[in-house]
Amino acid sequence: MSAEAHTARRRRSDGERSRQAILREAARLATVDGIDGLSLGRLADAVGMSKSGLFAHFKSKEELQLATIAAADDIFEEVVVVPAMRADPGVPRLEAFADRFIAHLRDEVFPGGCFFASAAVELGPRQGPVRDSALAVLVRWSGLLHAEVAQAQADGEIDASLDAGQVAFELNAFLLLANAQFIAGGGAELPLERAQTAFATRLSAARP
Amino acid sequence: MSAEAHTARRRRSDGERSRQAILREAARLATVDGIDGLSLGRLADAVGMSKSGLFAHFKSKEELQLATIAAADDIFEEVVVVPAMRADPGVPRLEAFADRFIAHLRDEVFPGGCFFASAAVELGPRQGPVRDSALAVLVRWSGLLHAEVAQAQADGEIDASLDAGQVAFELNAFLLLANAQFIAGGGAELPLERAQTAFATRLSAARP
Repeated sequence: MSAEAHTARRRRSDGERSRQAILREAARLATVDGIDGLSLGRLADAVGMSKSGLFAHFKSKEELQLATIAAADDIFEEVVVVPAMRADPGVPRLEAFADRFIAHLRDEVFPGGCFFASAAVELGPRQGPVRDSALAVLVRWSGLLHAEVAQAQADGEIDASLDAGQVAFELNAFLLLANAQFIAGGGAELPLERAQTAFATRLSAARP
Repeated sequence: MSAEAHTARRRRSDGERSRQAILREAARLATVDGIDGLSLGRLADAVGMSKSGLFAHFKSKEELQLATIAAADDIFEEVVVVPAMRADPGVPRLEAFADRFIAHLRDEVFPGGCFFASAAVELGPRQGPVRDSALAVLVRWSGLLHAEVAQAQADGEIDASLDAGQVAFELNAFLLLANAQFIAGGGAELPLERAQTAFATRLSAARP
């Protein structure tokens, strides 16, 4: 490799690292200030860069918002979905989804709670690609729960006569209220415990 | 009454009516643009007044936000809580809370769904009187559900050995996810039906 090519590659790679670091900070900020509250100016302050330096990474607010949602999706996959998928399919994996989701609240992976719960409320009533990309993550999450309920039915761990979508809705609901009350309650444990209890009670009642 | 006093009273009453109309519009707007997205300028456009005309009503953004939350609380009482309280105490009243809450979503009383669910997500991670006044409404709502579960236990309609706060949490969770999915899904009925089913199933499973 020529010295020039090496320098160019190194520069690109530094740029990528820096872009990822900026976007992770943007995803955290967005759970407090809102995705619409994300501005190059505020983000520049948060990451200690100039606004023009940031502008080299993101040409528009919409580009920044879309990249931030993609970064939040990566974080959610990394801390919730991927570890939970290591559990056995069916009921153990459903329990792992709940455990990992609740842990990501307790650990304040995002200071304003679940990124996508915030995004749904903020962007739900609007239109456009930013809304669509955030809501796609929620649809995927519902789909993961639904698929594991169906798997548990196929394995005889959940009553096959139940509506898998209905059971997945109920399990998902407990996690969403845990998120809202954990944030509203300033980090008290009770809503997290209630969601765990509700999740276990529902799975137990759904046994064949 | 002197002519002057009559004119003054009439002017005050017009001002009050106008203030209420402005605040109801502000509450609707806030579920789309956020409570922090409320500005005198945007609200002036929405209600067809000048910014200086609005400034006569609200001296600061915080005053506008607090008055908007109080107006949203009035609307929620009027369309959900008061009608539901006419049902018999205990299980019938819990069912009425669910019915009225779901009807207020379906009727798009607020275009962005439940005002206080949006407020919790937006304001939860912050500090100050605006946050506190919005969250107080949610605490009251949880308390209403909790009290009716306890009443149903006293009346022998719900198993007295269950934790009333836990049952209320589960019922509340179904309503919150109905709200989020109804908004995210552009008004499809399925999440509302799932919440109704979940509510009924939970109450049925909780019988003594």
